[in-house]
Amino acid sequence: MPKISIKGLQMPESPIRKLVPYAEAATAQGRKIYQLNIGQPDIKTPEGALDAVKNHNIEVLSYSHSAGFESYRKKLAKYYQKTSIPVDKNEIIITTGGSEALLFAMGSITDPGDEVIIPEPFYANYNGFATASGVSIKPIQSNIDNGFALPPISEFEKLISEKTKAILICNPGNPTGYLYTEEEIKQLADLAIKHDLFIVSDEVYREFAYDGAVHHSIMSIPELADHAIMVDSVSKRYSMCGARIGCLVSKNKEVIATAMKFAQARLSPPTFAQIASEAALDTPEEYFNEVIEEYTFRRNLLVEGLERIEGVKVAKPKGAFYCIAELPVENADDFAKWLLESFEDNNETIMVAPAAGFYSTPNTGNNQVRIAYVLKKEDLERAIVILEKALKEYNR
Amino acid sequence: MPKISIKGLQMPESPIRKLVPYAEAATAQGRKIYQLNIGQPDIKTPEGALDAVKNHNIEVLSYSHSAGFESYRKKLAKYYQKTSIPVDKNEIIITTGGSEALLFAMGSITDPGDEVIIPEPFYANYNGFATASGVSIKPIQSNIDNGFALPPISEFEKLISEKTKAILICNPGNPTGYLYTEEEIKQLADLAIKHDLFIVSDEVYREFAYDGAVHHSIMSIPELADHAIMVDSVSKRYSMCGARIGCLVSKNKEVIATAMKFAQARLSPPTFAQIASEAALDTPEEYFNEVIEEYTFRRNLLVEGLERIEGVKVAKPKGAFYCIAELPVENADDFAKWLLESFEDNNETIMVAPAAGFYSTPNTGNNQVRIAYVLKKEDLERAIVILEKALKEYNR
Repeated sequence: MPKISIKGLQMPESPIRKLVPYAEAATAQGRKIYQLNIGQPDIKTPEGALDAVKNHNIEVLSYSHSAGFESYRKKLAKYYQKTSIPVDKNEIIITTGGSEALLFAMGSITDPGDEVIIPEPFYANYNGFATASGVSIKPIQSNIDNGFALPPISEFEKLISEKTKAILICNPGNPTGYLYTEEEIKQLADLAIKHDLFIVSDEVYREFAYDGAVHHSIMSIPELADHAIMVDSVSKRYSMCGARIGCLVSKNKEVIATAMKFAQARLSPPTFAQIASEAALDTPEEYFNEVIEEYTFRRNLLVEGLERIEGVKVAKPKGAFYCIAELPVENADDFAKWLLESFEDNNETIMVAPAAGFYSTPNTGNNQVRIAYVLKKEDLERAIVILEKALKEYNR
Repeated sequence: MPKISIKGLQMPESPIRKLVPYAEAATAQGRKIYQLNIGQPDIKTPEGALDAVKNHNIEVLSYSHSAGFESYRKKLAKYYQKTSIPVDKNEIIITTGGSEALLFAMGSITDPGDEVIIPEPFYANYNGFATASGVSIKPIQSNIDNGFALPPISEFEKLISEKTKAILICNPGNPTGYLYTEEEIKQLADLAIKHDLFIVSDEVYREFAYDGAVHHSIMSIPELADHAIMVDSVSKRYSMCGARIGCLVSKNKEVIATAMKFAQARLSPPTFAQIASEAALDTPEEYFNEVIEEYTFRRNLLVEGLERIEGVKVAKPKGAFYCIAELPVENADDFAKWLLESFEDNNETIMVAPAAGFYSTPNTGNNQVRIAYVLKKEDLERAIVILEKALKEYNR
């Protein structure tokens, strides 16, 4: 039998997917599972986006421009301009999800053996994109005790080598919920300019900033124009995860020209999803106000609930819709499996994502889990009760 | 300014896209262009597929399964079973276009520095996927004089080294229109088994076989089960290029398990497009009969028209909707540019794809062009007249 590639063997499995067989078994036994493990919002997709697709008048579903509809890029540029990101349509490439934008960015700026520095814990699929691109991730640990703030710049400088091509951040962070301050973004910008590095900033949760906090994009720093690559997506902003539309944004013409070659090889992003995404830009402001209000409520509910449980420590998120919680267990991976395999309260249980999979450093975050607050009030309340009961039983 | 990667610099530009600025300039001058250069069919997409999207009742556009809708994979498996391809839903991964299936295949079976043998001329974007994956293409020339039939197996054996991981074929061929015979597929299968190689077969034009010819899939050879990886797409079959739905099919469990890790990293294929693709499977047989009849008619019209032009040689295609034509010019690249920049007949001209970009061997196919017969009768007839007049003027 011919052999799988080393790259293929090394491709990491998603830490979230690993639990799926256990969840399927529990469901098959009739147990109800509250899913705190994935970032699939229950929020309704804006009707305008869904209706635009219903009202399509396509007769021949043909390729679009490899960079995406020109009309969509124009409108998207206007949207960014309103949020102090001064880009035009030629500085945007529409991609198949933020995932493809990350792959295009890595392909354009790294070669096999190159290194990218990422504060950990980080979005686990960065591991997959790095492996697929042959790139090594150099992690820097951020800490639950200061809410996963940016680690000291001196820690970054220690890791920078000739192979370092970029620093990758997620702002607001998945899984931490941390929102970088203007000062932190400036520190990163100075570092990137000093060492001639790219900063790739995954800003797919940009709108999800709470308590009146302001999101600071790396695209808003003029001196960083040649260094900054932004990754964005409609998935979370409009609860349109299934559209698979994202974008890569940069004012660096070489980056755009190079990423375009990757874009042309795969022909075009999906047409129906572009129709929905373009229409979504007309979503009224109230939609977002309601969504932010709802997530703020859920965050408060969750954080207060978790803080009431003995032995649980939580970093209050300032953005996105995740938090990392430290549990009074040694091995959260084992606890997460046990929740699905052996625990039930009134025939119900919960599913959480063990946080170790969000760290690149081995044996880190073993007692942490990521919790997504994407469930409605009643479900979230019930899930917290189940967690408290489960911890008691597990530690008995 | 930080540097673009070597990989990024080496990413080839599409040979078809290179002419686009010249075409845009010609259009801006008010000249009409008959586009023989791209495989964008004018055939209508089946109504059932378009209506399914119009009638969607989605409220939350959520992620689908990373391998695609289970219902779609089940139905697709049945479709393949009817064409003597014995696969089940777990042997299919739905991808974002055939493009993504090719990337997943390369990622799963090759490492940087590995080699893949491909008969040339071949679909130019294979170059991009190989570069993105760090893989070297080892081309074997096929020849216009025997219609671009499979080169002798001895030629393949000469190229096989320790680094060779796979043979990649396109059947029926883009850009050649060649349909491999059962005997040729068997020869390839024996070779793959003997040398423990994968065969990746791009079969996106499977239905486009003319004159009653039968398509032979590599998936229909039981002994090849562990070696065969099929790439497919809805783009051409249902004139749904903009859907961006394809699939990777293999009976090799390790290949599927590995490709699934790549699939999970990018979360899921696009939802609306999956709805359209699943519905497209119910397209009545008459649709295909009409389409095949139309393409057969166009092919005959084109080939007979080209054969009437002095100095033009053409390999009559047996499938797909392209042909390679040898023109009485030294440099088809120059001729193609000249057609757009300097030629007009009654303010009209044509756009063709210089074939050199479909060869990996330098300075090959310089006097050849690829012509796609995706235009309706009147347009195709007019395009042939323009080509004949243009050749006369160019050679004057």
